[in-house]
Amino acid sequence: MNTADLGLPVAVPSTALFTDQYELTMLQAALRSGTAERRSVFEVFTRRLPEGRRYGVVGGTGRVLDAVENFRFDETILGFLRERGILDEPTLEWLADFRFRGDIWGYPEGEIYFPGSPVMRVEGTFAEAVLLETVILSILNHDSAVAAAASRMAVAAGGRPLMEMGARRTHELAAVAASRAAYVGGFHTTSDLAAGFRYNIPTVGTSAHAFTLLHDTERDAFTAQVDTLGGGTTLLVDTFDVTEAVRTAVEVAGPELGAVRIDSGDLLLIAHRVRQQLDELGATKTRIVVTSDLDEYAIASLAAAPVDAYGVGTQLVTGSGHPTCSMVYKLVARADSEEPGAPLRPVAKKSMGAKTSLGGRKWAARRPDADGVAEAEVIGTGPVPAELADRQLLVPLVSAGKVVAREPLDAARDRHIAARAALPLSATQLSRGEPVLPTEYV
Amino acid sequence: MNTADLGLPVAVPSTALFTDQYELTMLQAALRSGTAERRSVFEVFTRRLPEGRRYGVVGGTGRVLDAVENFRFDETILGFLRERGILDEPTLEWLADFRFRGDIWGYPEGEIYFPGSPVMRVEGTFAEAVLLETVILSILNHDSAVAAAASRMAVAAGGRPLMEMGARRTHELAAVAASRAAYVGGFHTTSDLAAGFRYNIPTVGTSAHAFTLLHDTERDAFTAQVDTLGGGTTLLVDTFDVTEAVRTAVEVAGPELGAVRIDSGDLLLIAHRVRQQLDELGATKTRIVVTSDLDEYAIASLAAAPVDAYGVGTQLVTGSGHPTCSMVYKLVARADSEEPGAPLRPVAKKSMGAKTSLGGRKWAARRPDADGVAEAEVIGTGPVPAELADRQLLVPLVSAGKVVAREPLDAARDRHIAARAALPLSATQLSRGEPVLPTEYV
Repeated sequence: MNTADLGLPVAVPSTALFTDQYELTMLQAALRSGTAERRSVFEVFTRRLPEGRRYGVVGGTGRVLDAVENFRFDETILGFLRERGILDEPTLEWLADFRFRGDIWGYPEGEIYFPGSPVMRVEGTFAEAVLLETVILSILNHDSAVAAAASRMAVAAGGRPLMEMGARRTHELAAVAASRAAYVGGFHTTSDLAAGFRYNIPTVGTSAHAFTLLHDTERDAFTAQVDTLGGGTTLLVDTFDVTEAVRTAVEVAGPELGAVRIDSGDLLLIAHRVRQQLDELGATKTRIVVTSDLDEYAIASLAAAPVDAYGVGTQLVTGSGHPTCSMVYKLVARADSEEPGAPLRPVAKKSMGAKTSLGGRKWAARRPDADGVAEAEVIGTGPVPAELADRQLLVPLVSAGKVVAREPLDAARDRHIAARAALPLSATQLSRGEPVLPTEYV
Repeated sequence: MNTADLGLPVAVPSTALFTDQYELTMLQAALRSGTAERRSVFEVFTRRLPEGRRYGVVGGTGRVLDAVENFRFDETILGFLRERGILDEPTLEWLADFRFRGDIWGYPEGEIYFPGSPVMRVEGTFAEAVLLETVILSILNHDSAVAAAASRMAVAAGGRPLMEMGARRTHELAAVAASRAAYVGGFHTTSDLAAGFRYNIPTVGTSAHAFTLLHDTERDAFTAQVDTLGGGTTLLVDTFDVTEAVRTAVEVAGPELGAVRIDSGDLLLIAHRVRQQLDELGATKTRIVVTSDLDEYAIASLAAAPVDAYGVGTQLVTGSGHPTCSMVYKLVARADSEEPGAPLRPVAKKSMGAKTSLGGRKWAARRPDADGVAEAEVIGTGPVPAELADRQLLVPLVSAGKVVAREPLDAARDRHIAARAALPLSATQLSRGEPVLPTEYV
């Protein structure tokens, strides 16, 4: 098996069908009306953060690059579109040669964002840029939601290790992307072997209640596990009676037992009891891992408990109440003709309601105060003020169709930590509040 | 491209890495302790429905069957597990030959479920059954969450067509599974081309504000669209001024215009105005499609509006507030030895907290009252009472490793409609409430 077989965009022959039908029919109409080649600028942004959240985290940028590179229409795809009568022959012919040759700029992965932040900007002909809407939004909306939840959990954990264990709570391939986004947001390991395989994230595992129940006694189960995995393993101690299980665990593994896992009950209370018991048994270095429906608030509530690591599942992979971001992909400028070099004109929807957008190709910069703490997200369409020139947030990701910003996942993870550390202190309060930086338009 | 290239389980060489690491290390320990071949029964169930929900909908069964069939450990996967030091050689050798040879029973796809319903039962050796935990839960938890949301929306829509348009709001492959689950739950079409390709769901599309903004005038845009897609197309009328756009639309396309789409503002008010305007313009058969952040409540609130179809995105693919189900995979019975024919013994976790389970291999039946309306979900571990014998809910899905229950997606969709229709009337109230049927254990 190679990575293609996991269906992950990097090695999938094509991501072109991760597309809403209207993108292709708009292409067809634009080819016919002589507007398809008008130079166009699309921007990805969100009008608001999830309610109460103080910052957003860009996740998925690296996956977008893979997806754009593999966005091709091969014979099978073209045959499908033809058979279904979705497109006419000239459009199918146009697609047969398609590859994205434009430019993409964006906030690098792990960076913080706020309402209005142009987290990605796609420039090219209308035809080539309109096609990427759905696949880009799918990736950024999903991955950023998980990365944001992970970041809050990492803050709550205060440096204690975080294990991603949510594969069973989300789509099997969304789970792999979620592990990746969680790592960017500050998690340390994953239980998901596909994520370990694909993204080289360190994998971990303990055992399930089923393993204890399979054996005639809890002692038999612990013995079996220690025999094969060694005393450094993590024994699950809440299948029957925790106190008895901890005693048995240390008897079986000795005081060098790696860790015990608690998966139910009042974790604060039980962790204290188990710590005391372990210490009394001489297992002073045996760690305590907790894993029961944790979210950032539950993690924070255990800050004073003798807990050594957290395993988080459901709430992580579902974005802790916000499973998607509300990022949109909007045309903000386009040329008046197909002539090369025709000047760009800002455009924006102007109808009623909250969906109005700001036209024009934007830059963005994070302005620090005198102490170097970020004080505003500044977004503009004109020239960049000199004092913000080296504070700009958008970087080149794709130039003339070529990916120019590949990086190891650790780079995104480190960037996130640095970006978060530059925010005002209130950024990391878990309580509900407004975005920690105002967005200023200049 | 073939279906493998979309990374969907049916044609992926292996789904074996969609697995949490502990399943493999438990296997290794069980092989060592001589318990791996103990006959075991695992059941999938949920302890509760999402808060306020009156019924659950089984989604993803068909995808589980594909995943089980493709759960194989090839050289690449074994190499990864070896290099990472996750497993020892005897376990790797055991896995090299692995294929699931046990039995799977389950609620057929589209069926309704309640707290405690054994929606899937996996029987085999511990070794073969424990490995399937994560991939089965991933699929059922995700797909059932979307199917349940879709079902509520379908009830709210009262027969009006529902279009799935949520690909951009979720992981690109989760989106494909979500389209499928939405179809099972009662949606009619999808905008997601990958879902059309993979599952043959009818695809649809309109156009985006970008298309209007690309052109010099709205009239130019409408003309371009009608020229190539014909007068039966759907024109988006809320980029600038709705009244003017509707007038232009009918001028351009004539009174045979297929539909107009409204994507912002007070949909109830605007739909009435647009209907009146269309009728005055003679476009009495032009349909009105609405698409702005709809959920089941918004859909219901438009019941009296002259709306002809709904397009639903975010709230559908995120389960309308409940993006995952809380299904778990628990060992409920196992043999005392590896001897073939050794009797099964019920087992269950017995620790404190809400996670206690009921041991034993279960049957389930939906008991009707004298009028044929369902009145209870009956679950038992002993003999099935004669009067419930033909009301049983579990059907064979996999027998001795062979899939025996493939069916077209429409069969699941029809089954869901029938199962929902057999529930008490209060099942389809959108208001929060208790599960519409009590679960009785006998």
